[in-house]
Amino acid sequence: MALNPQYDAIGRGFVQQYYTLFDDPAQRANLASMYNVETSFMTFEGVQLQGAVKIMEKLNALTFQKIGRIVTSVDSQPMFDGGVLINVLGRLQCDEDPPHPYMQTFVLKPLGDSFFVQHDIFRLGIHDIA
Amino acid sequence: MALNPQYDAIGRGFVQQYYTLFDDPAQRANLASMYNVETSFMTFEGVQLQGAVKIMEKLNALTFQKIGRIVTSVDSQPMFDGGVLINVLGRLQCDEDPPHPYMQTFVLKPLGDSFFVQHDIFRLGIHDIA
Repeated sequence: MALNPQYDAIGRGFVQQYYTLFDDPAQRANLASMYNVETSFMTFEGVQLQGAVKIMEKLNALTFQKIGRIVTSVDSQPMFDGGVLINVLGRLQCDEDPPHPYMQTFVLKPLGDSFFVQHDIFRLGIHDIA
Repeated sequence: MALNPQYDAIGRGFVQQYYTLFDDPAQRANLASMYNVETSFMTFEGVQLQGAVKIMEKLNALTFQKIGRIVTSVDSQPMFDGGVLINVLGRLQCDEDPPHPYMQTFVLKPLGDSFFVQHDIFRLGIHDIA
């Protein structure tokens, strides 16, 4: 497949759609449709998960109700299989915790007229080492 | 190609090797061998570059001589073409500037017995929005 020239719009649209679902506890379970049952990988704060079921177990176990999110940058690149690599830098505030920077990387894989999340890596930007 | 079970060691080894070259002004030009002449993409602080020549123009134009770097986390995932997705979170201090958090994502693509950098996205974690 060729490089998708719409990669930037796809990346920005995906990020908006994904976080709209993620940040609303009532809609978060709908993220399941974005992952493949077998071939999606997530690394969440260093914990590796494979497949929509295990990924959704993790996301559904997040207990915070109120999320304040600022997306600072979205950098996307077209991939040679028609997919899109997306890098997000932002700040996240969960319930009454202090806000933390975070980074999240997605690899979207083409599936028919749409995409699913093949790779997802999330890290809070908390540096233990001074 | 199958998933490479060595993805974690490959990711950590690559990150060490890449930054050893990057952080030494006398060796930085050798990074050219890690990029493909045509099919490597870099997004450096939002600036998109394609191909080893343009990427190295950018890297060679970096004028700082002394880099203090702390790698906080390296998260890698195997990719279905045999490649490796690598996410780095760290802190970076250039010359006498204050240290800044940064994130960098690499996609390594298999090439014979080794890999080249197909995708590279770099962002300093500087948030303009309070």
